[in-house]
Amino acid sequence: MKSGAELGHEGSRQREHISLAEAIEILCGEVFPHLRRRVVKTPCRSAQGRVLAEDVLARRNVPHYQASAVDGYALSAARTKGASVSAPVEIDDTSCLWVNTGNPVPEEFDSVLMVEDASLLPNGSLRVYKSLSLGANVRPVGEDVMRGQIIGKRGERVTPMSAALFLAAGVLDLPLSEPPVVTMIPTGDEIETPEKMEDVPVPGRVAETNSTMVAGFLREWGVSCTICPIVADDRVRLEEAVLDAVKRSDIVLVGAGTAKGERDHAEAALASLGKILFKGLRMKPGRPAIFGMVQDTPILCLPGFPMSSAVVVWSILYPLIRWFLFGLSPEGDLLREALRAVSEPMKLLMPHSSPQGIAEWLRVKGVELDGTRYAVPLPSGSSVMWAMAEADGFTLLHPEQFELPKGISVSVLLTKDISWKTRILFQGSNDPALEHILPLLRDRGGDMVIRSVGSLGGLAALRRGEGHVGACHLLDPETGEYNTPFIQRLQEGVWKRVLIYWRMQGILVPRSNPKGIFSVEDFSRETVRIANRQPGAGTRVLLDALLKERGVSPENVQGYGVVCTTHLDAASRVASGSADAALGIKAAADAFGLDFLPLAEEPYELIIPGKYLSHPGIEILLACLQNSEWKHRVELLGGYRWPA
Amino acid sequence: MKSGAELGHEGSRQREHISLAEAIEILCGEVFPHLRRRVVKTPCRSAQGRVLAEDVLARRNVPHYQASAVDGYALSAARTKGASVSAPVEIDDTSCLWVNTGNPVPEEFDSVLMVEDASLLPNGSLRVYKSLSLGANVRPVGEDVMRGQIIGKRGERVTPMSAALFLAAGVLDLPLSEPPVVTMIPTGDEIETPEKMEDVPVPGRVAETNSTMVAGFLREWGVSCTICPIVADDRVRLEEAVLDAVKRSDIVLVGAGTAKGERDHAEAALASLGKILFKGLRMKPGRPAIFGMVQDTPILCLPGFPMSSAVVVWSILYPLIRWFLFGLSPEGDLLREALRAVSEPMKLLMPHSSPQGIAEWLRVKGVELDGTRYAVPLPSGSSVMWAMAEADGFTLLHPEQFELPKGISVSVLLTKDISWKTRILFQGSNDPALEHILPLLRDRGGDMVIRSVGSLGGLAALRRGEGHVGACHLLDPETGEYNTPFIQRLQEGVWKRVLIYWRMQGILVPRSNPKGIFSVEDFSRETVRIANRQPGAGTRVLLDALLKERGVSPENVQGYGVVCTTHLDAASRVASGSADAALGIKAAADAFGLDFLPLAEEPYELIIPGKYLSHPGIEILLACLQNSEWKHRVELLGGYRWPA
Repeated sequence: MKSGAELGHEGSRQREHISLAEAIEILCGEVFPHLRRRVVKTPCRSAQGRVLAEDVLARRNVPHYQASAVDGYALSAARTKGASVSAPVEIDDTSCLWVNTGNPVPEEFDSVLMVEDASLLPNGSLRVYKSLSLGANVRPVGEDVMRGQIIGKRGERVTPMSAALFLAAGVLDLPLSEPPVVTMIPTGDEIETPEKMEDVPVPGRVAETNSTMVAGFLREWGVSCTICPIVADDRVRLEEAVLDAVKRSDIVLVGAGTAKGERDHAEAALASLGKILFKGLRMKPGRPAIFGMVQDTPILCLPGFPMSSAVVVWSILYPLIRWFLFGLSPEGDLLREALRAVSEPMKLLMPHSSPQGIAEWLRVKGVELDGTRYAVPLPSGSSVMWAMAEADGFTLLHPEQFELPKGISVSVLLTKDISWKTRILFQGSNDPALEHILPLLRDRGGDMVIRSVGSLGGLAALRRGEGHVGACHLLDPETGEYNTPFIQRLQEGVWKRVLIYWRMQGILVPRSNPKGIFSVEDFSRETVRIANRQPGAGTRVLLDALLKERGVSPENVQGYGVVCTTHLDAASRVASGSADAALGIKAAADAFGLDFLPLAEEPYELIIPGKYLSHPGIEILLACLQNSEWKHRVELLGGYRWPA
Repeated sequence: MKSGAELGHEGSRQREHISLAEAIEILCGEVFPHLRRRVVKTPCRSAQGRVLAEDVLARRNVPHYQASAVDGYALSAARTKGASVSAPVEIDDTSCLWVNTGNPVPEEFDSVLMVEDASLLPNGSLRVYKSLSLGANVRPVGEDVMRGQIIGKRGERVTPMSAALFLAAGVLDLPLSEPPVVTMIPTGDEIETPEKMEDVPVPGRVAETNSTMVAGFLREWGVSCTICPIVADDRVRLEEAVLDAVKRSDIVLVGAGTAKGERDHAEAALASLGKILFKGLRMKPGRPAIFGMVQDTPILCLPGFPMSSAVVVWSILYPLIRWFLFGLSPEGDLLREALRAVSEPMKLLMPHSSPQGIAEWLRVKGVELDGTRYAVPLPSGSSVMWAMAEADGFTLLHPEQFELPKGISVSVLLTKDISWKTRILFQGSNDPALEHILPLLRDRGGDMVIRSVGSLGGLAALRRGEGHVGACHLLDPETGEYNTPFIQRLQEGVWKRVLIYWRMQGILVPRSNPKGIFSVEDFSRETVRIANRQPGAGTRVLLDALLKERGVSPENVQGYGVVCTTHLDAASRVASGSADAALGIKAAADAFGLDFLPLAEEPYELIIPGKYLSHPGIEILLACLQNSEWKHRVELLGGYRWPA
């Protein structure tokens, strides 16, 4: 039989791109045995949320004396024998004593008569209307807690209630698990502390935000994290930083920059200082994790992309932390624990293709449609921070799940509370003004998930029953009519139309229009690159109609295939110079300080299937459309006109 | 129409013993309009868990420059036209640039070719094997977040992920709801700061633990609480303390002592300083709450008993706190929010009688029996701190629910994680040694809920399918045989019997046996009061058999009706002098330093229905019975003998 160390050494070559389960096995077999847990005596009052390292035994009885449970007269039950309302018994004032609730019952008495079962006579003696059994209305010593009783079990967290119980039982200090000392070393030439970033940062410079996120997760687990100054992409400096951190830490995290490539020194540093236990996880995102030990201290190298970093923290760092806190091997639903989430089964609202053999993380929003709870996947990609922050929860798809049909059940780790009954799903045309209504909805207990799938995409989604509300601005080139022909063709049952406003559509070009673009005909010039919208977007429908009208073939338009899903996205590309022109609304041009050449004023209509008109979330939405705060915000965006 | 103030004044007489819903209505109508929320700018890094008071808008695009999404060569997509593995295209070194992931893509280029789709030639030029579309592998400016985009909505809590997002988008300070300033004034002549209590406290003296608990709940909600020194039961001092607290607080809590009666000054003080809005809630426990306003500051007087105090905090204080944090009217499942609980439907394992017209709180443990989740109510009574701390969750029974049959579904607010698959329910004979096995079970991922219902009660429960394991020591007086006759009569299917140990039963008397009690015959003396056990307890069965054998009628035994549910309870009563003798095991006598007169050595057997033998929790229990740590603990208790 081989020792763990031998196996570790021998196995290290094969330990690339391992599964999460294999990684956990390595933790159990080769890491935990080298670690030490510490117990620290801590005043009960500062122990909330911390973990008991040992059982807590009561140091005194609660109550520690025979106490009255009521307001009344302490006396001997034998003296009340036979007493009743019709045949009261009299007791002289030396044989009873007034007691309040909680007062001690003197030894010479054994029971307490409630005040309403007696009357005090002028001579001071008591008229008793009730016969008592021995011990009536007396809380015996130790009724609540007996001295020596186990009142806290090791591995339990201290709650407000248990803290009060411990204090009542005379336990002032608690034996707690000392949280591990965690140090994080951010690395990378391109990253910079956010507070030190310029207002308009140099291209290539990235704010170092992973350490804030990781420290935040650790804090949720009751562990604090020291964040080191950023270390440049230099192997010697990294090794120095790791060795220094190892001296004063139980766990060291090395945070990669978002850039990788030729500058990745973590692996080399780790191999030279200690040993690598595994490298690469069969997980997406989260693949580029490296784990090793230096002088019996676990070193976890985190990927640079935020979502990658987060999932490695949840799946590898948490089991380590948990071992230090609870001394428990990784069992049960660790990810749920790590995320402090509620596990909720939901159905996928749309099909999803996942790479085979690799566990994939989805970020999802939850919506309830006709009583069924659906998970709506948010944009994936390890670098999308907005989607991470916006997600209601996360799903880890099994490596063997690769073609997930619509409607399949997935288990979502919900990290946020959802107002299921008032939240609605919007699928339709993108409009920046719509986002501004969300805070108002939320103030009123409502909520809306917005999917910008284009005007046609929205109508199709409504037809499939996949949304509470859509929105469109669709020009029918043949009739020149907006929306009606499309709605008539697609509607199921009755769809309510609500004209919110007219929006000015036009051509977005850089300020002063350097390339002299004045119509869509100019899009076919060799030197002009446009940014387009996705198929089905009303704006693309408009572009296609205009191109056709002018006899321009899309094939001759450079950038026709560059797809943006929002007006602001398209405007941003023009602003940053990656496109020379795009179709979009005036609000988007204004937001980016672009020049705007008006083309058409389009009606932007909300579409609501009749059955959802009485949905509480739709009612809140319709009310908010009349809200003056929102209307004011919309007017500031520019290019909107309210219907008469 | 009357003003709120007038209504308040007029209605104040009727506002006694109101429902929770009425109390919330009063908060909305007469309290919230007088309060002020404050917004405080706080560095993003210290904002975790806090609540956004305003929407957060991105101050810059993320990424703020055109960035490479891969490691490779930045170039112009047009230059790769037609390239493939079989027909590569060559590009000179001035027309491309090596970029790492995250590096800026210079303006003159529009796409990035992945490193694996090219090879570098000796002359420095690039051989390209793939034709790129415009913008390939380039993250456009603002791909993740657009400047001006709403990236945090008012009312949301700051998470580790949103904090990172805000920093990335250039938002260093956040507009947060300032938590209300809460001050608690504990009152009562009989209460004392726990740290100041003597090791053996004076009878009548009670540790002031409610403020610790209340401050703990507030802390869970992100609110800190100043605890004032204890104020004696003196109206003038209380008024001074309240006025002082009002000056520097948004909310003032007055904590009653556990004693009430003639010394209750809170109501008078409140009426004289301001006005009382309601007094008394139709809730059990929690009835004696008083709520008022002094100089536009809400004053909540909490009941003295811990559970009473807790439920008033959850149901009245939390909506107030929530208003300060979120500015939201009380809607939705506030109690679930207050308890930070998961709502879980469970069936009641036993019938429960609840007072009609009053909402009752139950403290419950959860167990799963054959796939169904059951709630097992713990001892009620507002003063039982152990049950509060031990509970997995809480249920608020509707005022109209009064006779709840077994099996009825209740909604439990679960505050703890339960290992449903490995937790077992023990119903049977009480034994202090059994409690000591719990930490071992938990170390191994198991858990056990112990209900001491007596030997017979346990067998009956197993027969009804209401437990995974029981335990008994039942003497059949006719045959002199233990357990077998009872098991044969009651068992359903096959029950496995596991003899754990022999226990010495005897008579417990105070040290030196002052009343000279030597056999159960002495129990019939006029001067002797015993403490008995509940019907069905093996120890009571033994007592009855012995009394019968000696010809003593229970009617002649004082205290025969005094029921204790555990050996330690009975021993405690003898130790405290409220009983002169009791039957019990030697371990209980030893625990309280009592004299012990042996009567019989009894077999203590675990009983396990056959179908549960393979239950993971039972397997863990059976393994732990062999554990030397536990065996050692049992031996220290005294009076146990292991079977041969």
